[in-house]
Amino acid sequence: MAGGRATLREVAQDAGVSASTVSRALAGNPAISEETRQRVQRSASKLNYVPNLQARGLKSAASAAVGLTIPSLINPFFAQMASAIQQAADTDGYSLVIASTNEDAGQLDAALQAFSGQQLAGAIVVPSLHSAPMVQSLLERGQRIVQVDRVLPGLDVPSVTTDAKSSIREAVEHLRDHGHTNIGYIAGPSSTSTGLQRLEGFHEAIRAVSNTNGVIFRGGYSSAEGFAGAADLLKRGATAIIAGDSMMTVGALQYVLDHKIGLGKHLALVGFDDQPAFQMQPVPLTVIEQHVDDVGRRAWEKVFALIRGEPVTQHDVLPTTLTIRESTNFNI
Amino acid sequence: MAGGRATLREVAQDAGVSASTVSRALAGNPAISEETRQRVQRSASKLNYVPNLQARGLKSAASAAVGLTIPSLINPFFAQMASAIQQAADTDGYSLVIASTNEDAGQLDAALQAFSGQQLAGAIVVPSLHSAPMVQSLLERGQRIVQVDRVLPGLDVPSVTTDAKSSIREAVEHLRDHGHTNIGYIAGPSSTSTGLQRLEGFHEAIRAVSNTNGVIFRGGYSSAEGFAGAADLLKRGATAIIAGDSMMTVGALQYVLDHKIGLGKHLALVGFDDQPAFQMQPVPLTVIEQHVDDVGRRAWEKVFALIRGEPVTQHDVLPTTLTIRESTNFNI
Repeated sequence: MAGGRATLREVAQDAGVSASTVSRALAGNPAISEETRQRVQRSASKLNYVPNLQARGLKSAASAAVGLTIPSLINPFFAQMASAIQQAADTDGYSLVIASTNEDAGQLDAALQAFSGQQLAGAIVVPSLHSAPMVQSLLERGQRIVQVDRVLPGLDVPSVTTDAKSSIREAVEHLRDHGHTNIGYIAGPSSTSTGLQRLEGFHEAIRAVSNTNGVIFRGGYSSAEGFAGAADLLKRGATAIIAGDSMMTVGALQYVLDHKIGLGKHLALVGFDDQPAFQMQPVPLTVIEQHVDDVGRRAWEKVFALIRGEPVTQHDVLPTTLTIRESTNFNI
Repeated sequence: MAGGRATLREVAQDAGVSASTVSRALAGNPAISEETRQRVQRSASKLNYVPNLQARGLKSAASAAVGLTIPSLINPFFAQMASAIQQAADTDGYSLVIASTNEDAGQLDAALQAFSGQQLAGAIVVPSLHSAPMVQSLLERGQRIVQVDRVLPGLDVPSVTTDAKSSIREAVEHLRDHGHTNIGYIAGPSSTSTGLQRLEGFHEAIRAVSNTNGVIFRGGYSSAEGFAGAADLLKRGATAIIAGDSMMTVGALQYVLDHKIGLGKHLALVGFDDQPAFQMQPVPLTVIEQHVDDVGRRAWEKVFALIRGEPVTQHDVLPTTLTIRESTNFNI
């Protein structure tokens, strides 16, 4: 307890409820039962908790909400990112309403339009390049927007993305060092900034790292595309494959397991994102990890700063990590 | 094409867009670009598509939205259920706004309250037993509500659940037939109807199946609880473990892999829900499968019927399946 004053979290712990329940209880929010309100009040008195009245003044007792669009719920990267944002929002007393748009520009536009009809304090968006006009029109109507994971080029909207290029370069060097000269890449869709930038990163790495030849399959962010990509790249002589996102990694891994290909012996596979399923394997996968919880938290901090009228850094690019495991740690 | 008239889906396929984009384009929804609108119109004319004007009259051109609360996004069962509901809603031209509540009754109440402040056509809810008063108050304000996965006892609200008891019984019989007499169960929280009912199902199965002794760990719907549960049950002499949900299965499997326990040789493990990670294993898991896409679709059909004022069956209980794989298919 800094300076002898309890924090919201300490009161929450003492009362056995979440931080947001404490805020809501102390603000007299009718969503909280009388019994819970009294328990929270006892904990707050006991711990000498003084609520931050300035912060509370910024929103009404009725819960304020922020919108989030994600392209897929099946993709564990986005599910985990949404969960991290939700927990950060909750700690600050906000609800998060999530729209999943099935990697479809029409559905994303519809979700953004639905957001504009609701009274949201702000929106966090994973944009598709096709949705620039709709995002622009929301901005013109004064909506506070943060872009996360993907960005629209040339748009003056704060963003949080990751630097996948440096890890892709590191992965290509690692594979070359283990004797691979024919390296395959399963690329994401060109309608997304991540699809374009990671492919660019692969091209740059192949050009920069001597004695390597790049083989590319243009896929999409689904396991079916990853499955097809692995089949195609193996036919074209690749001895190592880098998959350009979580879902394509699932598909590529499924292909390798289905066809009993000697992963970590005859084929090297680099996955994207550190999903539990990629570790819980007889031959655990080397992965390019994006630190998804940091991405989500940072996106929340940005939209929360916009809501409070505070200055916001424009484009945050978070580092990624290449985690080497048995799927690539062998010489061919 | 039944009767020579094209369906919405056929127009969508021809135009290369989603069904919801077709509805929106033909309704003149400004979310759809002029280019897309013209492409859709050409496909509709070519295929002689006649839109269902009656259905369209039920909502404005601006997108109508339905709310969904789920307890967790990290839990792949709920992520997949939300995705199935989202896709069904989209086909019928509705947006879905999702609130994830982190298995916390306070957050669920706040989400329901946020829903009541938005103009939603209906709500699909995974209730916690603590949230009965809030659901009741939404009902009194005329909100159309469907319960899914979990139910509130004694509440006159349509629901879609699964019959896990019969598969739990089948699992206990299967384990007994393979020589197990000490069978462990990792139970979910008693604040949920699924936690209570599945535990009841396990008790009933142990009573009904001769020569079996049940050992119970009272957990919660998280991987940490599954991990702790596996450790505890093994210490107490269980040679077979049934995990009571997806997340606890992940945790139990992690414990088994971390401690290099002879899965499918010395220990039998039955998981819950058929996650890709449970199949993509050196020893694939026997699972109790809930057919999550059916659950989601059925929940959507119910809320959509309520919205249209059509009669709705009250409580649908969908079957589950015991899928036997190597993790249990051995004699002890």
